[in-house]
Amino acid sequence: MMQPAAIALGVHLRVLSASRQDCANQVIPDVVIGQVDDVEAVLGFARGCDVITFEHEHVPAEVLERLVQSGIPVRPGPQALLYAQDKGEMRARLSALGLPCPAWRLVSDGAEAAEFAAQTGWPIVLKATRGGYDGRGVWVVSDEAAAARVAAEAAERGVALLAEAAVPFVRELSAQVARSPHGQAVAYPVVETVQREGICREVYAPAPGVDEAAALEAQRIALTIAKELEVTGMLAVELFQTADGALWINELAMRPHNSGHWSIDGALTSQFENHLRAVLDLPLGAPDPHAPLAVMANVIGLDLPDLYPAYLHCLARDPGLKIHTYGKAVKAGRKIGHVTVLGAELDDCLERARHAAAYLRGEIDE
Amino acid sequence: MMQPAAIALGVHLRVLSASRQDCANQVIPDVVIGQVDDVEAVLGFARGCDVITFEHEHVPAEVLERLVQSGIPVRPGPQALLYAQDKGEMRARLSALGLPCPAWRLVSDGAEAAEFAAQTGWPIVLKATRGGYDGRGVWVVSDEAAAARVAAEAAERGVALLAEAAVPFVRELSAQVARSPHGQAVAYPVVETVQREGICREVYAPAPGVDEAAALEAQRIALTIAKELEVTGMLAVELFQTADGALWINELAMRPHNSGHWSIDGALTSQFENHLRAVLDLPLGAPDPHAPLAVMANVIGLDLPDLYPAYLHCLARDPGLKIHTYGKAVKAGRKIGHVTVLGAELDDCLERARHAAAYLRGEIDE
Repeated sequence: MMQPAAIALGVHLRVLSASRQDCANQVIPDVVIGQVDDVEAVLGFARGCDVITFEHEHVPAEVLERLVQSGIPVRPGPQALLYAQDKGEMRARLSALGLPCPAWRLVSDGAEAAEFAAQTGWPIVLKATRGGYDGRGVWVVSDEAAAARVAAEAAERGVALLAEAAVPFVRELSAQVARSPHGQAVAYPVVETVQREGICREVYAPAPGVDEAAALEAQRIALTIAKELEVTGMLAVELFQTADGALWINELAMRPHNSGHWSIDGALTSQFENHLRAVLDLPLGAPDPHAPLAVMANVIGLDLPDLYPAYLHCLARDPGLKIHTYGKAVKAGRKIGHVTVLGAELDDCLERARHAAAYLRGEIDE
Repeated sequence: MMQPAAIALGVHLRVLSASRQDCANQVIPDVVIGQVDDVEAVLGFARGCDVITFEHEHVPAEVLERLVQSGIPVRPGPQALLYAQDKGEMRARLSALGLPCPAWRLVSDGAEAAEFAAQTGWPIVLKATRGGYDGRGVWVVSDEAAAARVAAEAAERGVALLAEAAVPFVRELSAQVARSPHGQAVAYPVVETVQREGICREVYAPAPGVDEAAALEAQRIALTIAKELEVTGMLAVELFQTADGALWINELAMRPHNSGHWSIDGALTSQFENHLRAVLDLPLGAPDPHAPLAVMANVIGLDLPDLYPAYLHCLARDPGLKIHTYGKAVKAGRKIGHVTVLGAELDDCLERARHAAAYLRGEIDE
């Protein structure tokens, strides 16, 4: 999804791809095959690049450091990426900045978890500090025995554990900002995200009915994090909102994020374009939305191996629908595409986006 | 510019490219090097493609016919493309359809031109029936001697000549439609185009102050041509408008056209996306504009070899500007990119787009 923005900007992309089957290879001519944890492969790949950036945060710190030593700008830099890679480091840093985090502590066994829960009440949330995504590496536990089982497994796999108070949220928001090396920043409208089974299903931009003070506070939090952590590129701050309107930081992503896919069709400057502009230290573009409302729904693979007939049906049913397919093989639970609908009425946009996403995955057939 | 639309749709593009230096090679992985008049090269290239389409009309008829014979859908087909390739055939067909063409006839020498001018008055317009673009192959002549010189040169080069009455137009419009093989069609808002030295400089979408009847008539003309000529893909009908509001057909283009570049950033479905949808017989997308007005200005190469500092300046000056660069070497008179501005006020959009286009070509430096 970076390539269309790169083409318009006249930016040449070179991609380090784990295999010839990766979908980036379908749309980008300059692909180097190599593994992200192979320092020599990464250094060879990087030679001649003006800047290195990422589509995920799981690049080992030692690889990042070697890149930096070799003199190639890495954006976001390792000192910023650390906080997107390690949830324990993130909590410590954001708490020190006085930003709203749920109660938290690192725990190594069931007893420590129980000690923590004595303050916050059960259930608590246990998270692997590193490596999780889309709900993986997160466990909600209701007693010491369950916590002990998770802790034992984590210890066995050498993973540190973070305990957090379970926030009784009424909805989840995401605040996205772009920040460039010289410190320019732009904030996108704050969106609502809807998760099921830990996977983002829908995004509403802007978050319906969010009051202005909360939206501004969410943007302030994201801009503060971007500045204090010296993030370059796109930053997404996932937030919980509780019934009283308060915001609590959940997670950070330092890259274009699923909660910003609506901006491809729905904003003057997409998150992909602003990510490229930011990491290249080009002036940032206006994030103005094209319509009062955008609804994005992910297409999550189910059991429809051939999308094509469904694709035809959806395009014919709704000429205003923007369907994006990722060129990935259909696999249960995998995000294989998304749809975006622009409009003015939430109910109308929701019906159209949900119908298309359900039809494309084969959940409905009319 | 087709590639971003193809990526979103999940369509794989294979490009026949005249050389490794062609700019399509920078952004499309599947490139075959070959010449468009080399039948065997084209047939080899086409093997395995679902459909063949074009970014210009200058593919020889015999190559098109061999493609059709080989069973590969060619869209638009040779029987439609003929009318975009040959202005004489176009005039004959459109006149037979009762569509508004300036007075015309084929001429082979100065005497025939003078005979024609006796009906219409001097000056008249002489056009090579084939091969011209961006003002090339068009001559305005004011007497028989000048006409005779053009005719002699044309005869020497084996080019047939068309004489047309010079239309005293007050502005030029372009009506774009997309049409698919099964006959679905959508019409884009009618735009005004501004030419200088035969090259399109600016496009205003929609045409400012055009009355509804004229806009509907322009769309009706384009839809009629698309249907009667069995065009598939995008069709642009360039029109002259005279002081009394009347419309006269100037030229046809059967492909995405410069007059529709505003739709990349300014419409829900760009002309490139609808061209792909149409030639693949996918349902067409809504051409709804995002803003009350879009202004597109071409960046015409002058003498600024390194665009980068100007590019930085323009992005910084106007965060709402959409700059597109084509990856071409800068050459005087060559279209090397375009800028689009969305807004509500013509004066404001014009100032922003003109400033950027002039700054990028090096005409102004503040």
